[in-house]
Amino acid sequence: MKKIINQAQNVVPEMVQGFVRAHQEKIQQVPETFVLKQKGIQKQVVLISGGGSGHEPAHAGFVGSGMLQAAVCGQVFTSPTPDQIFEGIKAIDQGQGVVMVVKNYSGDIMNFDMAKDLAEMEGIKVGTVVVDDDIAVEDSTYTQGKRGVAGTILVHKILGAAARNGASVEELVTLGEKVVESLKTIGVALTGATVPEVGKPGFVLADDEIEFGVGIHGEPGYKREKIKPSKEMAQELISKLKAVFGWKAGDRFAILVNGLGSTPLMEQYIFYEDAMNLLEADGVEVVFSKVGNYMTSLEMAGLSVTLLKVEDEWVKALNEEVDTVAW
Amino acid sequence: MKKIINQAQNVVPEMVQGFVRAHQEKIQQVPETFVLKQKGIQKQVVLISGGGSGHEPAHAGFVGSGMLQAAVCGQVFTSPTPDQIFEGIKAIDQGQGVVMVVKNYSGDIMNFDMAKDLAEMEGIKVGTVVVDDDIAVEDSTYTQGKRGVAGTILVHKILGAAARNGASVEELVTLGEKVVESLKTIGVALTGATVPEVGKPGFVLADDEIEFGVGIHGEPGYKREKIKPSKEMAQELISKLKAVFGWKAGDRFAILVNGLGSTPLMEQYIFYEDAMNLLEADGVEVVFSKVGNYMTSLEMAGLSVTLLKVEDEWVKALNEEVDTVAW
Repeated sequence: MKKIINQAQNVVPEMVQGFVRAHQEKIQQVPETFVLKQKGIQKQVVLISGGGSGHEPAHAGFVGSGMLQAAVCGQVFTSPTPDQIFEGIKAIDQGQGVVMVVKNYSGDIMNFDMAKDLAEMEGIKVGTVVVDDDIAVEDSTYTQGKRGVAGTILVHKILGAAARNGASVEELVTLGEKVVESLKTIGVALTGATVPEVGKPGFVLADDEIEFGVGIHGEPGYKREKIKPSKEMAQELISKLKAVFGWKAGDRFAILVNGLGSTPLMEQYIFYEDAMNLLEADGVEVVFSKVGNYMTSLEMAGLSVTLLKVEDEWVKALNEEVDTVAW
Repeated sequence: MKKIINQAQNVVPEMVQGFVRAHQEKIQQVPETFVLKQKGIQKQVVLISGGGSGHEPAHAGFVGSGMLQAAVCGQVFTSPTPDQIFEGIKAIDQGQGVVMVVKNYSGDIMNFDMAKDLAEMEGIKVGTVVVDDDIAVEDSTYTQGKRGVAGTILVHKILGAAARNGASVEELVTLGEKVVESLKTIGVALTGATVPEVGKPGFVLADDEIEFGVGIHGEPGYKREKIKPSKEMAQELISKLKAVFGWKAGDRFAILVNGLGSTPLMEQYIFYEDAMNLLEADGVEVVFSKVGNYMTSLEMAGLSVTLLKVEDEWVKALNEEVDTVAW
């Protein structure tokens, strides 16, 4: 394992310290927690998300006006504990309630749910939006149903805009559920990732091998094949998305091509172009594009592609200004 | 070689197409070139930069109001040709002149210089700022003197703000030279990078080996050692910077910790924290921080640290709003 770290068991606290110091003009740490919150929150329903670390810039990079008001950082690839989430909820609540955006992993679902119970006992209103955008497989190593992956960032953005513009907890939950229904992601991995405390890759692919549908914690995908050109990888992934959406000409989408860690932007833009050509050939209209590392899996090589079938209001929300480190 | 590409010789045109399509609201391609220019340039002295591709998001990611007005994309790790640079200059000139920000590599120096001659023959006023911030070695595979690396981004930002605020070509060149004198960078690599058309890494390090001072095209550094903790890597790099700056307590700096490609943000923030602790111990005041992948070397693992001894005006410029893809 070749990493720029000190002791493997300290990577999360040290990263959090660095993050807070680098971005102290917009971010503060909730004392004695690994919760990072927005400085200067306006009076609004607030949003909290989080999960295991190792997916940076998710989620702390999306804390700021117009997106999340707090992110809770668990250990690497491990859900944060209920008490940490609860501290985050208390630290950001402005008296109008809180919405939690949770990726669909059993540990996260359980712990966010317990935090919700704790908060409700203190009279804080809490809503939950569960994101399960990964269409690769049903049920997985750490999940019942589908996994939550990169599309979560778009949920943060659309709900974040609505919350800033005055939406209630109920309205945000309804909106969130609607967005998640229209949100699908699928990816391809070229290498595994190494959790510092484990010290070796979660899975190993041969030098000429790729795996479609791998999860962001290295959960198994649906197919291993020899490496192939970007155009063919795009064909594979876009055809899976097409099968689920069943789109027709004129349908309108947002796209996110998300690097998983060590895949250069050059490759992400090449793949994006190939994916866009396929969508264009079907007459699908892409009205919002984003390309880059937003939900990573440590140093995994590969990428995912997310499509969101959009409504006009959502496009407006995706384009609204935010004050975050990483959007 | 395991990359998400189609044919190796087409990576730059395909990447450029993808980039323009993804960011068409702010970027346009100068027809029949690999020059990317800002849409809707105001009346001002304009800035152009560029160089070999493979350093994304540099430089196209820094095109936009308040930074560059154009970026010229050469082949991977290869200077753009004079005619491409010249087309870029013509496409953005607003009649008030152009300043070229050039990283110090022999090919870039020669080609930007020839483009300047071509532009001056057409009556366009052109100034040049050469960036040679890498203190690792004197002279290198492709360079006489010191190499230009990640600190270039800070030059773009400070000159970009001054140009938008009305500075002349002469003022920008003087300012640029002053910034470059106060700008020093040094890095460490954990792995090499593979140029697609070459198909194998430019250099190979053993599984437990790192190299200090490697260039962003894999140029040799000054020392190979066994992997060590982040704190010790920070000690090595910061002590080199200290020797050059000779700082004293109260001196004010901006810092950029720049990921070279496949090093996760987690590791970059851990290293940043270690570097900051060393600076703090010396009483140095860091007034501006940036952490992330800004000047990469394809999928190289490692990072660089840049320090800029700042003046008040420069800090203001670093903090001004811009409308770019990647700042």
